[in-house]
Amino acid sequence: MTQNISTQPYKGTRDFYPEDCRVRTWMFDKLRTTLGRFGYEEYDGPMLEPFELYASKTSEEIVNEQLYWLVDRGDRKLAVRPEMTPTLARMVAARIQELPKPIRWFSIPNLWRYERPQRGRLREHWQLNVDVFGGSRPNEDLEICQLVHAIFDGFGARSGYEVRLNHRGLTNFIFSDLLKLPAEKHASVGRLLDAAPKMGDSKFLAALAEEQVTGKTAQFLVDLLKPDAAKRLEKDLKNCAAWQELTALLQRLEALGLRSHFRFDPSVMRGFMYYTGLVLEAFDLHPDNNRALFGGGRYDNLVGMFGGPALSGMGFGMGDVTLRNFLEVHQLVPNLQAANGVLVAHLSEAQELDALRLADALRSASEQRVLTTLSAEKPKKIFAMAERLRVQYVVFVGDSEVTSQTFAMKNILTGDQTLGTVAELSFKLKTKS
Amino acid sequence: MTQNISTQPYKGTRDFYPEDCRVRTWMFDKLRTTLGRFGYEEYDGPMLEPFELYASKTSEEIVNEQLYWLVDRGDRKLAVRPEMTPTLARMVAARIQELPKPIRWFSIPNLWRYERPQRGRLREHWQLNVDVFGGSRPNEDLEICQLVHAIFDGFGARSGYEVRLNHRGLTNFIFSDLLKLPAEKHASVGRLLDAAPKMGDSKFLAALAEEQVTGKTAQFLVDLLKPDAAKRLEKDLKNCAAWQELTALLQRLEALGLRSHFRFDPSVMRGFMYYTGLVLEAFDLHPDNNRALFGGGRYDNLVGMFGGPALSGMGFGMGDVTLRNFLEVHQLVPNLQAANGVLVAHLSEAQELDALRLADALRSASEQRVLTTLSAEKPKKIFAMAERLRVQYVVFVGDSEVTSQTFAMKNILTGDQTLGTVAELSFKLKTKS
Repeated sequence: MTQNISTQPYKGTRDFYPEDCRVRTWMFDKLRTTLGRFGYEEYDGPMLEPFELYASKTSEEIVNEQLYWLVDRGDRKLAVRPEMTPTLARMVAARIQELPKPIRWFSIPNLWRYERPQRGRLREHWQLNVDVFGGSRPNEDLEICQLVHAIFDGFGARSGYEVRLNHRGLTNFIFSDLLKLPAEKHASVGRLLDAAPKMGDSKFLAALAEEQVTGKTAQFLVDLLKPDAAKRLEKDLKNCAAWQELTALLQRLEALGLRSHFRFDPSVMRGFMYYTGLVLEAFDLHPDNNRALFGGGRYDNLVGMFGGPALSGMGFGMGDVTLRNFLEVHQLVPNLQAANGVLVAHLSEAQELDALRLADALRSASEQRVLTTLSAEKPKKIFAMAERLRVQYVVFVGDSEVTSQTFAMKNILTGDQTLGTVAELSFKLKTKS
Repeated sequence: MTQNISTQPYKGTRDFYPEDCRVRTWMFDKLRTTLGRFGYEEYDGPMLEPFELYASKTSEEIVNEQLYWLVDRGDRKLAVRPEMTPTLARMVAARIQELPKPIRWFSIPNLWRYERPQRGRLREHWQLNVDVFGGSRPNEDLEICQLVHAIFDGFGARSGYEVRLNHRGLTNFIFSDLLKLPAEKHASVGRLLDAAPKMGDSKFLAALAEEQVTGKTAQFLVDLLKPDAAKRLEKDLKNCAAWQELTALLQRLEALGLRSHFRFDPSVMRGFMYYTGLVLEAFDLHPDNNRALFGGGRYDNLVGMFGGPALSGMGFGMGDVTLRNFLEVHQLVPNLQAANGVLVAHLSEAQELDALRLADALRSASEQRVLTTLSAEKPKKIFAMAERLRVQYVVFVGDSEVTSQTFAMKNILTGDQTLGTVAELSFKLKTKS
């Protein structure tokens, strides 16, 4: 037997010890609550999917450079899911006729990509996926915006973020009508624009020059990244249908009192090839974490690869790592390590069964966390254990307590002591009185 | 783009559409509640682990025949986790000094094994893993038995199952002291005994004969599988320390009022090599699902492969498929598809924003599920939608309702209608009055 296997998890992945698992559970519960109130229903699919599901749909970068895949013992090529959308498309396609519309679904899968681990980017992460389809397009777009706001709101984030909106039709209008870029350049220039915020102006200009995009056209694209781009552009967009759609959306957000969290930003791309209408990107405004948090957009014909009728929808994906960074930097994670519940302790083995009986009775009556010591211990050790196990109260079970069926429960945070029967102590635990 | 990709999930795995996801969430929430009350804390680890983690510890059958594994782009061999215990061992070993004792942990990971799919056995399943260590051995054994009972109890299963107990020391005593089997035969005969319930007597006898185990010894082993084996054995076990331990455990279960759910069964093996003390197997007594549900036992030195101090513990693993089969056959799954919440509908586009405002107000005030239609619809279509989306109430937003800020909320199950302000309707929703 080898003695030198590492105790560390695979690079780019995380172990969730109880203190981290609590934060994750708290985050996901909050998400589930908000989504549930809007009528979104949770789904899930297998962790491994047929390789072909990604080969034809997912971006080439992911398939060629980031996918984890294997061949099973029956010679089938399988991939560890790098994103949830292909699974969603497969599941919706399989039951497209019978699913009640509008379809409002979410999932919080773990996803795998072979990436160089860095802040906010890991090889395994969990990602909330939210999608709506089968309704009217402007109303779906608006609901997703409402939902993004409600999610932040649910975490107590009243400010400190903004949601940047763009529209693929507007990008097409700029490329075709304003810049007269030849159609065959749209994809490559779009991808450069997508990457531009990370490149900086001079690198971006150099890359554009390689595509024979120079002079005023190149400068226009650089200016698109500047904070005042939206304002400067507005007069040029009057005849653009996508701009009218986006304007109407912003007006409705205004009417619902949400406008201040949203902003038109013509540089938002979120992966050039994928989206076909509205595109959104939530951004953290905190100086210590000034970065994109998550994004999404409208796509056409989700289920195209499976045949059947076209189905357009709108959705977004939100990673757990960036979400947690956002919540931490804005101090929105509550104290989840606070002491709670009771430790029922006995000083000698003679009281062991009585201690177990009391613990059981307290558990049933109070519905709280009730731990036992799993061995007779001295008081000093019991208090140390209570502190390490994060309980708020200690009850000692001794001979006289068993006889009188009256127990002393000590609050180890305040030192207060309560004397009472099981019912009395349970009431106190339940009401935290 | 291919048009012929299957919409079905990979063989032996499941898609969780919302109606199945609801059942899974309900089951896991129940488990989390029961475990939380005993002070068990949730942990999780990565889906892929270094291959070596299983190569040295997991059974050869799993590693050679059932493991899904791959080589990453950095030439590291990784396995999709087939069981949680190696991850648990790794995580505990990494922090063995600082973790508060007793350690009470649980996890509900998805696990992968290449198996022939059949009832209760899939290639991907979820498995509750519960472990306790760092306490006294008999008390840990007792607590795990209490917990198994509490889990059934939490699901409302007051009967219909039994937990069969055995002890590895008792098996050793039978092999060595009663049967005088040579030590080198213990492992092979133990494995045969483990497999015997599926083989039937004659096949079992034939397999024993191949191991040169014949005559009275073979007959003794066959009789061990009979229902009255425990009773017949008792007199022979007087001098067996493991039997005394098991008897003490059964007495304490009696004292706690749990004895009727537990039974000594000398044929319970649960994988011969793994366990070193108490072994348990929960069994469904329902005639339509008469089968083992899950099992567990005591193991020594969980963290041995990582070096460091020995750590003995007790735990069990419970699969989601067998658990769901049990709950369904005993009719313990409540109706999770019951209608709830509200559909806020508008008849013309002019009321769209008002409908969204009302929905938002009802959501905040009632904290219930409030859906919108995502388009103006006729009443007939709205009622059909409400039924398909499983809401209990419909509110129509029209011109006069907006003016008066008084809305009619119709219970589509009873036909009753309530007229009220947002506050009044929210109160009704919240209290289900």
